[in-house]
Amino acid sequence: MWTRSLVLSAPGKVILHGEHAVVHGKVALATALNLRTFLRMTPRQDGRVSLQLPNLGSRRSWEAAELRPLLAAVASVELPEAQPPSAEQVEKLKEFAGGDNGQEAVQSVAAAAFLYLYLSVASKCGVMPAVDILVWSELPTGAGLGSSAAYSVCLAGALLSGCGAISYPLQEGQEVARWTKEELDVINRLAFKGEQVIHGNPSGVDNAVSTWGGALRYISGKISALKRVPTLRILLTNTKVPRSTKVLVAGVKAKLLKFPTVMEPMLTSIGAISRECEGILEAMTGEPSQEDYSRLEDLVDINQHLLNGIGVGHALLDRVCEVTSCHGLHSKLTGAGGGGCAITLLRPGTAPSAVEDAIRDLTQCGFECWETVIGAPGVSAHALPCLRAEVQKALQGS
Amino acid sequence: MWTRSLVLSAPGKVILHGEHAVVHGKVALATALNLRTFLRMTPRQDGRVSLQLPNLGSRRSWEAAELRPLLAAVASVELPEAQPPSAEQVEKLKEFAGGDNGQEAVQSVAAAAFLYLYLSVASKCGVMPAVDILVWSELPTGAGLGSSAAYSVCLAGALLSGCGAISYPLQEGQEVARWTKEELDVINRLAFKGEQVIHGNPSGVDNAVSTWGGALRYISGKISALKRVPTLRILLTNTKVPRSTKVLVAGVKAKLLKFPTVMEPMLTSIGAISRECEGILEAMTGEPSQEDYSRLEDLVDINQHLLNGIGVGHALLDRVCEVTSCHGLHSKLTGAGGGGCAITLLRPGTAPSAVEDAIRDLTQCGFECWETVIGAPGVSAHALPCLRAEVQKALQGS
Repeated sequence: MWTRSLVLSAPGKVILHGEHAVVHGKVALATALNLRTFLRMTPRQDGRVSLQLPNLGSRRSWEAAELRPLLAAVASVELPEAQPPSAEQVEKLKEFAGGDNGQEAVQSVAAAAFLYLYLSVASKCGVMPAVDILVWSELPTGAGLGSSAAYSVCLAGALLSGCGAISYPLQEGQEVARWTKEELDVINRLAFKGEQVIHGNPSGVDNAVSTWGGALRYISGKISALKRVPTLRILLTNTKVPRSTKVLVAGVKAKLLKFPTVMEPMLTSIGAISRECEGILEAMTGEPSQEDYSRLEDLVDINQHLLNGIGVGHALLDRVCEVTSCHGLHSKLTGAGGGGCAITLLRPGTAPSAVEDAIRDLTQCGFECWETVIGAPGVSAHALPCLRAEVQKALQGS
Repeated sequence: MWTRSLVLSAPGKVILHGEHAVVHGKVALATALNLRTFLRMTPRQDGRVSLQLPNLGSRRSWEAAELRPLLAAVASVELPEAQPPSAEQVEKLKEFAGGDNGQEAVQSVAAAAFLYLYLSVASKCGVMPAVDILVWSELPTGAGLGSSAAYSVCLAGALLSGCGAISYPLQEGQEVARWTKEELDVINRLAFKGEQVIHGNPSGVDNAVSTWGGALRYISGKISALKRVPTLRILLTNTKVPRSTKVLVAGVKAKLLKFPTVMEPMLTSIGAISRECEGILEAMTGEPSQEDYSRLEDLVDINQHLLNGIGVGHALLDRVCEVTSCHGLHSKLTGAGGGGCAITLLRPGTAPSAVEDAIRDLTQCGFECWETVIGAPGVSAHALPCLRAEVQKALQGS
């Protein structure tokens, strides 16, 4: 398979409900966001391995032979049940990839994750393949939208297909194809390693939702897929307010210690919103009623107030809610809060003009806005000519 | 005592925490608001009874003898353990008082409440006293601030003191005096009758807080006074948005039926806020710490979000919160919500300039604003010359 070009994509994620409450043992719902990361892997004849990440402005290449000594660094790695990458392994790979501050640090950690996955697969299949890999994403990085997971999933899918550990499912004449449940499981487990290189101790939710697509419920470390999930139209709005997830999580914990009898039921209520929403989504197959959407909107509104109540709101997130509310739309923060992104539900029948007007008003506030869907398919194999022109162009590389 | 002039005042009320949740069996905290209703009762020599209510633009007078036939209408009345006023009694008194639409209806029900209390006391003491009664209030009516209860409490205190059923506690040379616990109980029970005439089926919280002052906890129909309560500076802001308590209460109930697992913990959390606040207030005697105020502010913020979450917020109440937040102050709606009033906590050390600036900004929004305190004394007897000039002037009548 190293002789064939492969094209893959994997979605980002948004938390629909349950952010923060999940830290305290409540249910969260993570959904696949149809802003996708695309990867193109093409064989090379010159024995080199190259990695292009145009979003990061990064382009690196190595002699495959030059990478061989690093195999020792990931020597303990065995697919797929191995230990998490050790701090020493990660350090060694980052050092090899070079650069350790600012944008360079981000490039370096992305390269380290690639090297880890490449070497894992190379060690497994006994070949150091010479390939060009280009990864381009519609997802903004560092916005809590799972861009690193989508990156790891694409890499895992491509490298595992390349070495033949799993099939490459795209048949002649197909536009798009997906892997079997078992293969997705292999991809997910390797992608999780990439996430571990990048984040140290990730929950595994981001790579799972990017692999499986649709929606996942997450509680006390257990991840399971919702049976059937409709794709829901949303607006995703990035307030561009920077925030620290760690600080926000610590703030909720401090408040919980300060006012346990007040805060505990609020977290319980947020968990109940996740469960209620799960029930509505699973019942929404077929012809969703206006009542279903109305209930989803109610839950979005209530949760936004609860998230403000537990202290993870922000004036500009409230602004998103106000602006969209003027157009009859319902919004909540998603993820860590304190800034970052908000999601706005759109009914199937929401007039394009209402959406356009909302986007215009949000943009005028200085926010960045995407109209997309959640509940999107997970990692997919594509026929390059069938992708949007913009994506094809991006995957040509420079 | 009918030969002496009496001057009384009674406070309004604000719900500090627990509005709406109290309907569902959670604790509410009602506090005495130091916007007061004043009453002056002076003996007449001409056998007439007159009632002046300058706030309502109402002035009525009757021959005391002319009221005698009405005694039969309240004949079943016995102080203080009697049945509530029957619909027939109230109807008869309103008919006698005349006027049944618009402003006239309000005047008529106020006169009916007066007549009921007057006849109750007259029947008890066997005299139809000839008196001038003037009631003037700092409280806006119909804003959920307990103006009708303050009116009933003033009337009950004056009439019961007049007939000698209780003492008139003001001694020569005193500025202000209060009744004994037992006497306050008698006043409260009669005032409740006045509230029943006006409201049909009131909870009894408003007259209790106006009688006792300070703060009361209210749960499942049981009212009890907090042991010790500090007076707290507040801003009271009237958004002037009209709303129906009945509609708002029904809205919460509908939401509770729609999303029981989500809503029930939110109401539990609101009840926990009341209990937490109660604990802080009772511990705040002596030298309240900045930490105490910080906790009170936290609870105000959290409850405002919860009240929004259960659906009783309003954009203009959010506006009050935003505007005061710009001056470092913390606000929540009080009472039914959906409009009406908000309270803003002021620390003892809050700079006068911050308060003035906040009031200016709130006034510019079209709101009406009072700087006052909660936890104020209940019904009190006053020496007229010691009252503020504005109050003295109002009590002179026209």
